[in-house]
Amino acid sequence: MKTGVGFEVTAGDGAARAGRLTTAHGTIPTPAFMPVGTAGTVKAMKSEDVAATGAAVILANTYHLMLRPGAGRVAALGGLHRFMNWDGPILTDSGGYQVLSLTGLRTLHENGVTFRSHIDGTEHDLTPERAIEVQGLLGSDIAMALDECTPYPVERTAARESMELSMRWAARSRARFQPKEGYGLFGIVQGGVFEDLRRESVAALLDIGFDGYAVGGLAVGEGQAEMYRIVEATVNHLPEDRPRYLMGVGKPHDIVGAVSRGIDMFDCVLPTRSGRTGQAFTRRGAVNLRNARHAEDPRPLDESCACLACASYSRAYLHHLFKAKEILGNVLLSAHNLTYYQELMSGLRSAIAGGSLEGFIAAFREEQAAGDIPVV
Amino acid sequence: MKTGVGFEVTAGDGAARAGRLTTAHGTIPTPAFMPVGTAGTVKAMKSEDVAATGAAVILANTYHLMLRPGAGRVAALGGLHRFMNWDGPILTDSGGYQVLSLTGLRTLHENGVTFRSHIDGTEHDLTPERAIEVQGLLGSDIAMALDECTPYPVERTAARESMELSMRWAARSRARFQPKEGYGLFGIVQGGVFEDLRRESVAALLDIGFDGYAVGGLAVGEGQAEMYRIVEATVNHLPEDRPRYLMGVGKPHDIVGAVSRGIDMFDCVLPTRSGRTGQAFTRRGAVNLRNARHAEDPRPLDESCACLACASYSRAYLHHLFKAKEILGNVLLSAHNLTYYQELMSGLRSAIAGGSLEGFIAAFREEQAAGDIPVV
Repeated sequence: MKTGVGFEVTAGDGAARAGRLTTAHGTIPTPAFMPVGTAGTVKAMKSEDVAATGAAVILANTYHLMLRPGAGRVAALGGLHRFMNWDGPILTDSGGYQVLSLTGLRTLHENGVTFRSHIDGTEHDLTPERAIEVQGLLGSDIAMALDECTPYPVERTAARESMELSMRWAARSRARFQPKEGYGLFGIVQGGVFEDLRRESVAALLDIGFDGYAVGGLAVGEGQAEMYRIVEATVNHLPEDRPRYLMGVGKPHDIVGAVSRGIDMFDCVLPTRSGRTGQAFTRRGAVNLRNARHAEDPRPLDESCACLACASYSRAYLHHLFKAKEILGNVLLSAHNLTYYQELMSGLRSAIAGGSLEGFIAAFREEQAAGDIPVV
Repeated sequence: MKTGVGFEVTAGDGAARAGRLTTAHGTIPTPAFMPVGTAGTVKAMKSEDVAATGAAVILANTYHLMLRPGAGRVAALGGLHRFMNWDGPILTDSGGYQVLSLTGLRTLHENGVTFRSHIDGTEHDLTPERAIEVQGLLGSDIAMALDECTPYPVERTAARESMELSMRWAARSRARFQPKEGYGLFGIVQGGVFEDLRRESVAALLDIGFDGYAVGGLAVGEGQAEMYRIVEATVNHLPEDRPRYLMGVGKPHDIVGAVSRGIDMFDCVLPTRSGRTGQAFTRRGAVNLRNARHAEDPRPLDESCACLACASYSRAYLHHLFKAKEILGNVLLSAHNLTYYQELMSGLRSAIAGGSLEGFIAAFREEQAAGDIPVV
């Protein structure tokens, strides 16, 4: 039996690739953006509405789900897919990033992380083995190895120690993961902003062998230029035939730049989190719907957008919903922003397949720079 | 040209009636329950989802909309139907109830009410004429005359004075209302818990002549028995051929009892407000989804319910959403509760048409009293 997830590169354009990632719950066209469903729900959206945005895969957070409702409970209820009514692929993070963010509530040691729940203060251990077990109980199609996200900025020595710890955890994660057809485990490259450490990390992960490789520890304050430098230095050493996932990225510009450098997968809370504050992403840049200039505007946010907000509601109405703090504003703008992100990914895939990525990116930048459609 | 809204009683069973109320934006089968869309949105629900619950008409609040986004603005944007993407009939209240609830911020006088906005403290006047103008700007299918909701408890003399003021305002409301085909104006019966005052109020309204008659000033603390007594005493004097609307009612039991006494229309925030706190209405009574007994229950809230929550999500998932304070909990439970209310109304209409209302009510009471489906 063939185990793991399948991946096929179907087209290339410069360093960029388009492909197909096949999991137990379906095939994901890449480059792909994964909406974040932190606590078993992409915030403010029904699963049907998430699917309607064009999303083929979502991300769920192991940390949140292991604490509430608990991984064992999710398993007893038939797994995360059934629990949240999402039939497509699910990628789960390892929980490491969020546990390590619990400053003052956690202790890092060789075996893993001991932490206190932000919900009820109870003490828990997250080890590489436990992270894999929990993700197995959730039933995710793609699990992530436990790692330490190297802080930024950090000295070289500390970055090396952190990376080496992550590599030892990666080996332990792999050892505990039970291979099954359609289910995969990704390793995470660390090493901060040091290219040689990134190379060492890649070599260590390739020695262990994973279904895909994530670039971790970026988008933590290093800036876009540094991020791209490290992405390039990392991607150059990753195998062509395995998917590459840039974790926690990002803004539309960041994604476009990373795709052109050979990244296949992304996740970010930005479209949904921004959507809940009235910030829209559009072809012509970010638009703040709380701004008074929208108050009497009968036009949709973007006439060319097929999302449910743009199909049926005016900017004036969206503005009103945010001024009145109505839940429907969160619902509609989350749907719009995710639709925009998926449209962008679809455009990138088509451009790569057609060998026209350079032109696509030039047009993308020009349109973004032009700013919001003026009031007529 | 025939002006006003049409109404036809199609079946009767005891004092109860089934009928059809025809407006510019469609026909409403009665008895009907109107979900409340306070600020131009039925809270947490897209208009499409409201329609999917079976609702044929919604209520919107004049007070909220006149302050934000403003009635003139809604009119400039094509009216409330287009603004909130609801193609069906809309009934608007007069704003009086909410303005008069602004204790300390309002002054009642013969001409109307002077009040300060709860949003920005600006001073406004709501007169019978202005209430009608605002409702015209919103474009509602059914407007309500401005009235004072007589407080409870209240002395007889004060109740008379209040009712008589409302009757003078009713005449002024009617005088300002511009008759048009498909658009109607309802008068509101007041008089507190005093049957003779209610009779006098009905006589005054019939003298003026309205498209329909509302029973106001109830469900304000008088209790169900008192409410039914006044409903009976009022309905007995209302014309058979005009719709009757019991304002702000209520719980499923209240609605069933009022339908059996000849009421045709209802509105209440209860299904949506309760839905946002985790309280579900079901055939078997109220169910609090925050209760720990639901935490591991894989069954839907109600297997026989066709709502989107019951179709795809477990009690355990709904419980989780409310514990985690996720917006999707509000979305799903609002949809469920409105679906339950609409199912109840549909059942009442069928029972009246079939002459089986007594049996329907007996079965309703028995099922409600049985309590929630036990865990197996």
